[in-house]
Amino acid sequence: MDDYERGFEQFKQMVGDDRIDDLISRFKSICPDFEREVISVVGGRIWTRQGIDLKTRSLCSISILAALGRDSALKLNLEMAFNNGATLEEIFEALFQVAVYAGFPAAWDALSKLEEVLAEIDD
Amino acid sequence: MDDYERGFEQFKQMVGDDRIDDLISRFKSICPDFEREVISVVGGRIWTRQGIDLKTRSLCSISILAALGRDSALKLNLEMAFNNGATLEEIFEALFQVAVYAGFPAAWDALSKLEEVLAEIDD
Amino acid sequence: MDDYERGFEQFKQMVGDDRIDDLISRFKSICPDFEREVISVVGGRIWTRQGIDLKTRSLCSISILAALGRDSALKLNLEMAFNNGATLEEIFEALFQVAVYAGFPAAWDALSKLEEVLAEIDD
Amino acid sequence: MDDYERGFEQFKQMVGDDRIDDLISRFKSICPDFEREVISVVGGRIWTRQGIDLKTRSLCSISILAALGRDSALKLNLEMAFNNGATLEEIFEALFQVAVYAGFPAAWDALSKLEEVLAEIDD
Amino acid sequence: MDDYERGFEQFKQMVGDDRIDDLISRFKSICPDFEREVISVVGGRIWTRQGIDLKTRSLCSISILAALGRDSALKLNLEMAFNNGATLEEIFEALFQVAVYAGFPAAWDALSKLEEVLAEIDD
Amino acid sequence: MDDYERGFEQFKQMVGDDRIDDLISRFKSICPDFEREVISVVGGRIWTRQGIDLKTRSLCSISILAALGRDSALKLNLEMAFNNGATLEEIFEALFQVAVYAGFPAAWDALSKLEEVLAEIDD
Repeated sequence: MDDYERGFEQFKQMVGDDRIDDLISRFKSICPDFEREVISVVGGRIWTRQGIDLKTRSLCSISILAALGRDSALKLNLEMAFNNGATLEEIFEALFQVAVYAGFPAAWDALSKLEEVLAEIDD
Repeated sequence: MDDYERGFEQFKQMVGDDRIDDLISRFKSICPDFEREVISVVGGRIWTRQGIDLKTRSLCSISILAALGRDSALKLNLEMAFNNGATLEEIFEALFQVAVYAGFPAAWDALSKLEEVLAEIDD
Repeated sequence: MDDYERGFEQFKQMVGDDRIDDLISRFKSICPDFEREVISVVGGRIWTRQGIDLKTRSLCSISILAALGRDSALKLNLEMAFNNGATLEEIFEALFQVAVYAGFPAAWDALSKLEEVLAEIDD
Repeated sequence: MDDYERGFEQFKQMVGDDRIDDLISRFKSICPDFEREVISVVGGRIWTRQGIDLKTRSLCSISILAALGRDSALKLNLEMAFNNGATLEEIFEALFQVAVYAGFPAAWDALSKLEEVLAEIDD
Repeated sequence: MDDYERGFEQFKQMVGDDRIDDLISRFKSICPDFEREVISVVGGRIWTRQGIDLKTRSLCSISILAALGRDSALKLNLEMAFNNGATLEEIFEALFQVAVYAGFPAAWDALSKLEEVLAEIDD
Repeated sequence: MDDYERGFEQFKQMVGDDRIDDLISRFKSICPDFEREVISVVGGRIWTRQGIDLKTRSLCSISILAALGRDSALKLNLEMAFNNGATLEEIFEALFQVAVYAGFPAAWDALSKLEEVLAEIDD
């Protein structure tokens, strides 16, 4: 498998079979080259690495994206975190570190995104 | 124990008995109130929480601080991460998430800080 | 009074009696622990401090939140600024400092949030 | 011509005759002084400078605004980039630099804004 | 007086007669046009505005620069804050707002810069 | 050639034959995997793309890194910009866009880095 194929399989596992096509086409619609790089680099070269489990990798990613206020990627990573085995409580704890190290508003905004994700899962 | 005492014990465990007085006086020298808030809030109210282990909490904190480029706090958190049981490899993996989600330069700068921390531990 | 009670009273004074329950429940709905920390730390330990008046504290907070683009907290702080005695002109001047030190787009976005707040006050 | 007049002419050329009044009044509605500074400083003193062509200036501006996640200004600058002669492909390439230097999510969010701009141009 | 002259007088008042030439030549050494824009825009068009007093303007500026981690400009603004009538205590309080809204590390780093400024004033 | 080889050739062209080994070993010293990803992804997958010339790609990169305050990567990119055909004047103009869109302090700090780079080239 090449980087793209590894990345595709990795993301499929993390977003679920029924969501992967949506995700891919959302990336592809405007700039196909960008979709290829995201899947190959972020998915194929980085998320497939060993050394920490997927749950910890998810909690680190959520921490980064909440600190930087990158809302779309944060939302996707919150969804993937549940598939990677993170519990709601573990996500809360990552966001408490965000509160003191990046400011309470960064954590608050991330909790709003989390609320949206939970509402969509409920539907 | 009140928040300050809990925070003091928590930081003492994480930076080591021989480093805690240095850390405290560095915070205290310019603004004693700030030292009290850092120890009480960051240490006493947040780092003492349950829900994720200290190693994961360290990896999330490193991810946040690397993404934001907060160098002094990053250095302190790299030191604490080793005391909290993180391996070099696990820190690397957190920084790979930083590379793709906050940009490669954020991860590169964090690796430079890590190099400094490792050199000091060697001494 | 403990930190939480002091923080609750402080926020009640700054957002108004009719808004405080809304604010509290918005924080509480997703993560009650986070609500307790925001009220206790941000409200009870920091906003209750002496040394500068509440109006100046509001103008500093608006400056920070506009610079970082933290929209929900910025909006809340714009509302609180009026209750803390800031005039529209004083808020404008804080945002002119944002324009040159954090870039004109940061100030522009904050003015849009301010426009929303003024429209809601009018209603 | 003074700074304001130079800035007004510059922005009129870059956003188009039919859009300039909208833009001006959007800035003016909340804080007329801010409109004067944006037009005079950003438009009159900076965008009128020589040394790089307008297209390159647009690509640099898009890169900055995407990296910082300043969405309203990014959208305006994407519109202006087309009027300044940038092609879709050139904008994509600026955003690939954003992806590796500011993180893939910053580039992804900018592509979403670009999609909105393209949809509005189509209408 | 034009913008540059107004800015020059304003900065001279804020950094002191004996420091202004140093500051000007530091800006000028690499890019004279940049010096002209900083003095004219930041000094002449913004710092000369009415509506809040210079001390409050300084406290807002310090808040912004600490939140963004812009160290050189932060240091200059800490110096100017004292000349604008701010006390050490008032600066501390601005930084407490930074701690909760931009994270404790941002405030900690600013306190280190403040310590440097105080040491230089002592000399 | 694979991604790594393409990236190595690309960086060698941009930093010069006499600098490439230094750069590589600086990246490699702490985390060899990180060196492989930087060279392969940043160098091999992105900098080798077509669509804009290397000079424009450099100016965009400088704009991003100055806006985010990523000093080590900024310095490297300033060096590469000269090898990619950018003139001092063109770099100044990119930084004027940084001044108004990310704040004057971001541009000022970048000019200091540029001064360091020019001093090293002179030696």
